[in-house]
Amino acid sequence: MNETDIESYMSVLGQRARRASRALARATTAEKNAALEAMAGGLDAQRAALVEANARDLAAGREKGLDAALLDRLELTPARIDSMIEGLRQIASLPDPVGEIFDLKYRPSGIQVGRMRVPLGVVGIIYESRPNVTADAAALCLKSGNAAVLRGGSEAFHSNQAIAAEVRAGLERAGLPGDAVQVLETTDRAAVGRMIAMPESIDVIIPRGGKGLIERISREARVPVIKHLDGICHTYIDVDADPKKAFKVALNAKTQRYGTCNTMETLLVAEGVAEDVLPELADAFIAKGVELRGCPVACALLAPGRCQPASDADWDTEYLGPILSIRVVADVDQAIEHIAAHSSGHTEAIITENYTTARRFLREVDSSSVMVNASTRFADGFEYGLGAEIGISTDKFHARGPVGLEGLTSVKFIVLGDGHIRT
Amino acid sequence: MNETDIESYMSVLGQRARRASRALARATTAEKNAALEAMAGGLDAQRAALVEANARDLAAGREKGLDAALLDRLELTPARIDSMIEGLRQIASLPDPVGEIFDLKYRPSGIQVGRMRVPLGVVGIIYESRPNVTADAAALCLKSGNAAVLRGGSEAFHSNQAIAAEVRAGLERAGLPGDAVQVLETTDRAAVGRMIAMPESIDVIIPRGGKGLIERISREARVPVIKHLDGICHTYIDVDADPKKAFKVALNAKTQRYGTCNTMETLLVAEGVAEDVLPELADAFIAKGVELRGCPVACALLAPGRCQPASDADWDTEYLGPILSIRVVADVDQAIEHIAAHSSGHTEAIITENYTTARRFLREVDSSSVMVNASTRFADGFEYGLGAEIGISTDKFHARGPVGLEGLTSVKFIVLGDGHIRT
Repeated sequence: MNETDIESYMSVLGQRARRASRALARATTAEKNAALEAMAGGLDAQRAALVEANARDLAAGREKGLDAALLDRLELTPARIDSMIEGLRQIASLPDPVGEIFDLKYRPSGIQVGRMRVPLGVVGIIYESRPNVTADAAALCLKSGNAAVLRGGSEAFHSNQAIAAEVRAGLERAGLPGDAVQVLETTDRAAVGRMIAMPESIDVIIPRGGKGLIERISREARVPVIKHLDGICHTYIDVDADPKKAFKVALNAKTQRYGTCNTMETLLVAEGVAEDVLPELADAFIAKGVELRGCPVACALLAPGRCQPASDADWDTEYLGPILSIRVVADVDQAIEHIAAHSSGHTEAIITENYTTARRFLREVDSSSVMVNASTRFADGFEYGLGAEIGISTDKFHARGPVGLEGLTSVKFIVLGDGHIRT
Repeated sequence: MNETDIESYMSVLGQRARRASRALARATTAEKNAALEAMAGGLDAQRAALVEANARDLAAGREKGLDAALLDRLELTPARIDSMIEGLRQIASLPDPVGEIFDLKYRPSGIQVGRMRVPLGVVGIIYESRPNVTADAAALCLKSGNAAVLRGGSEAFHSNQAIAAEVRAGLERAGLPGDAVQVLETTDRAAVGRMIAMPESIDVIIPRGGKGLIERISREARVPVIKHLDGICHTYIDVDADPKKAFKVALNAKTQRYGTCNTMETLLVAEGVAEDVLPELADAFIAKGVELRGCPVACALLAPGRCQPASDADWDTEYLGPILSIRVVADVDQAIEHIAAHSSGHTEAIITENYTTARRFLREVDSSSVMVNASTRFADGFEYGLGAEIGISTDKFHARGPVGLEGLTSVKFIVLGDGHIRT
């Protein structure tokens, strides 16, 4: 497509999405669940077609020389198709957030004022190689009453189109507009540029992928963006920590999985317990193959060669791998200060038995999740009971932390009267 | 100041605001209330100085040839100083939103997950001529634990500085940082340009004023904006309306005050009742001096000369004055469609005795306030029980509808464990 074609393609697509969003906002819970079930059934019946479309993407990827990790993310194995189908059914089983009315109270004037949860409208999602995101994102938007415009990675184009066909068929089988979920049929980058700058048709953009993608979209978007950049998570072992809990939680926060955004990247230890706690922890980390980079005090406490001096950049780095920076701090104040200066606002934990210190940390640390005596690895929509997750927001606006169905809704005021007038 | 001076002035001011915001986020309810009381006392004691500073602004305004309405808004009369002081005390008496913990529940893993209400950080407010906004905005930001950067209209410069001095003194008397509320000491427009584009120091911008100001700021801001543009509010008289309620509510929605954003601008009437309802209503509107502009059907129902034909532009106009557009529609579907096409998303009301129609209107109309059998004039923070209002948001993101203390906060997740790790 040339530029004019893209322009008009996106503009038509946007109008369709807006129109579909009105029907979706009205849709009943039963209709939405029926569509999700129909999509699940369709994907199950069309496994062969999905695998075939996916094979085309994989072949093209190999030809283009994509690396093994990317090819792996791209592949639709039978197990991944299973879990895509299972995901749709899980979202069908979640409570419908739309239409919930709360805080309905009488006012002195006699009117009743309350709030009602409503869809945002049209949600645009831009993602990279995993084709299963197509089904997942479609389902979350649908259940929350939003129309969706999806733009997947160009390397997954055929897989995404095959999934999109089943999504559309499922919507239509349930009597909902097929345009409620539109997957872009072009891989032209200019379409993304339009997608993030059409507030008349798309109300919010959720980019999922690498930091570069997210930064570019945030900079250029003309609509609100629900985004999550780095996860530079901290665990602070307080002077009043239970050493057993500290050992267990810190080890889990770093080593349970390395590549996730809720993995601890920096360990802060109060100087009063550093000598007791650090050597044993360092042994455990090293046994797991974790490289340690410490402040001078931390390094001095560990046997030579077990800890490299941390550079300034280390305190601001999301390693996403088996590396950990360690700093010995004077007390909880210095820990909170370090976090304020270096955290990405994702998740921080304190290990302490002290009531007042725990209470202060909870209140004063300004991150999307703040924990006491628990592993940062718990920061996750499923662990929090949201049932599903479209991403983790490190912004303070609108949604903060794991974003589930509720994060895809807005709240309006409702007023019930009986002919009331203002005097 | 030249450009470099503005740059460095704003950068220092921003750093001070950020630092102060941390202290404010920690501040106790008692400290914040003490500061509000101290400000109220200070303003009360300094009435003479306020009036003197205001007289300088008024004199300069007269010299510049400002119109009477603007000069009136600018004036700090004794009654306005009273209500400014009263406003501070009222905000002191409101519950503190910061630190509220809710939805704290055990998860199957054993962790407790909940949410805590926290300040946004630093709030920037840009407003026009009324100097009392300085005290009002300072108080709302302070009570919600946010530092504030305020930029008032240049015509109110001396008045704002006089109020700012008392605000700062009040903060300091209560042991809080004076930098928690900074009023710009320059009227240079370049400072506004900086203010809306320093995400490292200011987290959100709230513009209050004319549409031009708000549109410009929304377009250029590099941080989220809580904004409210037009109030094109509709009242729909349904076929099942009680005619007495319809008469009373529609008249009130238009004529109780003309210049407010929650005033009705368009009346929609179901054709089944138009003949019964419209003539009497039109008489009442005309008796109050309201000019009527109708669709052909509406005009045909009214005596010649009592209704002018509405142009296309009328359906999209916020009159803010004694003019009303009237359209006869087929039914609630067409009313909802008209609203979707022409409303500014502020406030819409239906007059009906029909349960199902009311329920549909509440759910399907996508505005910040949706009402049944009540005057749109109720859309207001005080009427809703928010205790105070910094503005009315017609956006769907973050805050929607009247924005009180809660709209100036964010919500983070908290996790309480006992050494819990993820497996």
